[in-house]
Amino acid sequence: MGWMDAVPLWDHHCHALLREEERDNLEALARCLTEAPLDYPLRDIKKTVVYQEALAVAAQELGTQPEEEPLRRALRAADYRAYCRRLFQNAGYGRLYIDTGYTPEQAWSLTELQEVLGISVYPILRLETTAEWCFRQSGSFEEWRTLFIQQVSQARQSGYRGAKSIVAYRSGLHIMPVDEGTASRRWEEMRQLGQQRLQQAELLNYLVHLATPLLIQQQLPLQFHTGYGDPDTDLLQGNPLLLRVYLETYAQQDHRVVLLHTYPYQREAGYLTSVYRGVYADVSLALPLAASGAVRILHELLELAPLSRVLFASDSHSRPESYALAGQFFREGMDQFLSRVVGAHQVRASVAADWAEAVSFRNAEALYGT
Amino acid sequence: MGWMDAVPLWDHHCHALLREEERDNLEALARCLTEAPLDYPLRDIKKTVVYQEALAVAAQELGTQPEEEPLRRALRAADYRAYCRRLFQNAGYGRLYIDTGYTPEQAWSLTELQEVLGISVYPILRLETTAEWCFRQSGSFEEWRTLFIQQVSQARQSGYRGAKSIVAYRSGLHIMPVDEGTASRRWEEMRQLGQQRLQQAELLNYLVHLATPLLIQQQLPLQFHTGYGDPDTDLLQGNPLLLRVYLETYAQQDHRVVLLHTYPYQREAGYLTSVYRGVYADVSLALPLAASGAVRILHELLELAPLSRVLFASDSHSRPESYALAGQFFREGMDQFLSRVVGAHQVRASVAADWAEAVSFRNAEALYGT
Amino acid sequence: MGWMDAVPLWDHHCHALLREEERDNLEALARCLTEAPLDYPLRDIKKTVVYQEALAVAAQELGTQPEEEPLRRALRAADYRAYCRRLFQNAGYGRLYIDTGYTPEQAWSLTELQEVLGISVYPILRLETTAEWCFRQSGSFEEWRTLFIQQVSQARQSGYRGAKSIVAYRSGLHIMPVDEGTASRRWEEMRQLGQQRLQQAELLNYLVHLATPLLIQQQLPLQFHTGYGDPDTDLLQGNPLLLRVYLETYAQQDHRVVLLHTYPYQREAGYLTSVYRGVYADVSLALPLAASGAVRILHELLELAPLSRVLFASDSHSRPESYALAGQFFREGMDQFLSRVVGAHQVRASVAADWAEAVSFRNAEALYGT
Repeated sequence: MGWMDAVPLWDHHCHALLREEERDNLEALARCLTEAPLDYPLRDIKKTVVYQEALAVAAQELGTQPEEEPLRRALRAADYRAYCRRLFQNAGYGRLYIDTGYTPEQAWSLTELQEVLGISVYPILRLETTAEWCFRQSGSFEEWRTLFIQQVSQARQSGYRGAKSIVAYRSGLHIMPVDEGTASRRWEEMRQLGQQRLQQAELLNYLVHLATPLLIQQQLPLQFHTGYGDPDTDLLQGNPLLLRVYLETYAQQDHRVVLLHTYPYQREAGYLTSVYRGVYADVSLALPLAASGAVRILHELLELAPLSRVLFASDSHSRPESYALAGQFFREGMDQFLSRVVGAHQVRASVAADWAEAVSFRNAEALYGT
Repeated sequence: MGWMDAVPLWDHHCHALLREEERDNLEALARCLTEAPLDYPLRDIKKTVVYQEALAVAAQELGTQPEEEPLRRALRAADYRAYCRRLFQNAGYGRLYIDTGYTPEQAWSLTELQEVLGISVYPILRLETTAEWCFRQSGSFEEWRTLFIQQVSQARQSGYRGAKSIVAYRSGLHIMPVDEGTASRRWEEMRQLGQQRLQQAELLNYLVHLATPLLIQQQLPLQFHTGYGDPDTDLLQGNPLLLRVYLETYAQQDHRVVLLHTYPYQREAGYLTSVYRGVYADVSLALPLAASGAVRILHELLELAPLSRVLFASDSHSRPESYALAGQFFREGMDQFLSRVVGAHQVRASVAADWAEAVSFRNAEALYGT
Repeated sequence: MGWMDAVPLWDHHCHALLREEERDNLEALARCLTEAPLDYPLRDIKKTVVYQEALAVAAQELGTQPEEEPLRRALRAADYRAYCRRLFQNAGYGRLYIDTGYTPEQAWSLTELQEVLGISVYPILRLETTAEWCFRQSGSFEEWRTLFIQQVSQARQSGYRGAKSIVAYRSGLHIMPVDEGTASRRWEEMRQLGQQRLQQAELLNYLVHLATPLLIQQQLPLQFHTGYGDPDTDLLQGNPLLLRVYLETYAQQDHRVVLLHTYPYQREAGYLTSVYRGVYADVSLALPLAASGAVRILHELLELAPLSRVLFASDSHSRPESYALAGQFFREGMDQFLSRVVGAHQVRASVAADWAEAVSFRNAEALYGT
């Protein structure tokens, strides 16, 4: 029996699933297994390990061949809700925290998802999406600022369990302090240019600093997209080491920060969790997408990261097969890790069993609440 | 039987071989297995896995001891052309694409090489070398520009199968657009300083942008030196992520870009191939030079790179032993990879067999033509 | 029998040990196994492989359970000097080079340490600490400069076997030339601000360039902290590739430079050792601290580094268990490496045996003298 067999996985960062109307959409399956933009050739996505394995997972569950035509037929014939639920159950999912900032069209609502899967689902508030919504409601910087503060301050009360920032792929993780006068001028420029999308660095940085104390007050952690994970990211600006000034600013204030994805900077992320008292990390979307390397990548995060600072996430969306694979790779990677440290590093079995629970759900529980 | 046993290797980036007059030159063997400059001590190069294994490969082929004196004697006595041909045949080479921008003195010409090895050899045009040749023929910027355009425009007609840029180790991969006025001023300065070597960043960047549409018209791919691979490189400026602005510029134009070497940025290179539709990558010279890590390095590229975007190259020059080792490590690395994804990731055997062909020669065929 | 069984380890970079009064201080044990600042929670440090294995090592040696209470009792009852000596002997330590720039309070002096452990101990001069001491003795820049030159010039005569710079975590490794006028102005500013700590980049860079020729004259190597290893480091500024301009400046002068720690830049460090004739590297503190990855990290350094350029160091301090683990992981890593290159890369057994000696003590001997 493996170390990970009996523990539920709480996925602290993922997205919604497509409805049953899309159940035989294998293009959607391929597209949810890559970060490539839509003009990237489908035929190349199909030449990846993760796509091939996703076909195999689906075929196995449906009792058909892992090829596209038989699979489409089987998916059309299947009770898709039961299919989804079985894949999540087989992978041992216990809970989902959903970033509502990105939702595929034709997706189930959170309430529907909870019903389909039979597990609890909680929302995470995306700061930039919230700020853009406030922007559309506001006639002045002051109004915008007040409305944003109000939205973020009510987050816990509104049911959110944490917040997320995508500043990494808008302007980068080198978040600097920005005074209100500067932010106000940038806001006016944005208004005058008729922009709806927040993309100016100073405004984005101002926003993160505006939200942070409000999140600390509510004991809500702030997730940062870092590393790989969006077609328009500049990966050089997504190195989590760039967060240093931001982390130093709040180091004394019980602010909890979660580094999402982190690939290919998982070692840098592990380092940050080992020297900053409020920092957590995962390798989320590298689990399904870098399938053949998932175990190695997880092990690199675990070189320096204390076991109390590592979380499970799939960053999956749209299709249940992606969640199934992420869960499976995480279990395999942790199981190998725990077997090795018990065998070669004399870690006691009771400690390893605790660590299996910690990374699977207890750390998430401590961060996001029960 | 392994997945890679029956497939020929098309080496899409390598250089010429030394003639038989140099056949017992073991210093040349050592020097071709490092990127160190000539004042780097020979004794340190000998304390590498690749040098020791190269001695073993030569000794095995010649039926002697893997030590320098017996080897020199055996090489002197050998039919060197037959020796070279056997090493290439044993490693399963099917075709070479040779970057004529760097050719060791005392090397066989491409025609001779083809005859010696019994396989096809095609040239790749190096942009900077071409531009420097044009510089020597021209009295004005306008003349230089016209001549360069003419040379690049005739590339396919002249037999070239692709082009290569070494801007990475001249001024770095952060290639920006440069207007003609600026380029012209930099050109004049170069003329006035009496320089023959193109090293000014704006001029180098101008050149790449000047050549790109001409290459697209001829459907010739552009190889970029990235990462490790030259004694005077600033490795920080060779991170392929720096190419982002350049890649975005041509993303809609069916431009095909090949990231050469990439080490230690093979994961970053894999990422780029997974989100840009015209990007390919290899780990070339890390294969022989980082011998003990070659398999791991290749596997890191394969974490994100679709199998349709990975190429084989040896980046070898001067000595046949280097080609032999690169070929062997690539086969081993791919064989392990394919066995694992079939075993642990449920990739179908027919798919794995396709992928073995793809990375060995079919992707090169699609890029460079039959 | 393994390749590393019979070779002594010379630890070319470590620190002093706590005295027997602290022998049952398990918090000190935990704190010496992390680079976290003091406000980092002890409970997280305990959830690392290295802490758990350190408990196991101590318990095994003392014949008790690897839990904190029995261990504290056993440590209180033990002959702590004999315990320390046994751990060093079991790990096969032959010699220590101690950086006296960081010494924990309550530590044994070098003379005491030599007596306790029964092996030779040599000091390494830390440049910045020396410069700060000189600053406190001096009334003017000129006096400071003269006194610093005098201290460094006497280093070998005073028994030092090398020097060390921590410029990486004060202002970064991009060390530029600084003229005397600028340095003098920065010195005056430091004086006027009442600072005692050297932290201004130009002054720090000036210092390194001032010391370098004096070290070359005495044939003393200069160690640079690089990569991971201090709570206030900006890891982006600790990339050893940033040393390029400095290395090029002294490339023709038989200056020997040692890159300490290097994690997560061990591949970049290996590259530098492979192209600069005076550069050496280790993975020191990653050995104990990244315990579960220690072998992999060492193997990544060995991808490009000649075996004549790799050194053993533990970067340990305070507790003997840390040295024991570093020694054990280095032996395991090298043993696996040598077995593999003999088995899979045809390296001759005699060569592998030489390499085992080289990395364990002969390279250190060549650098620091017998």
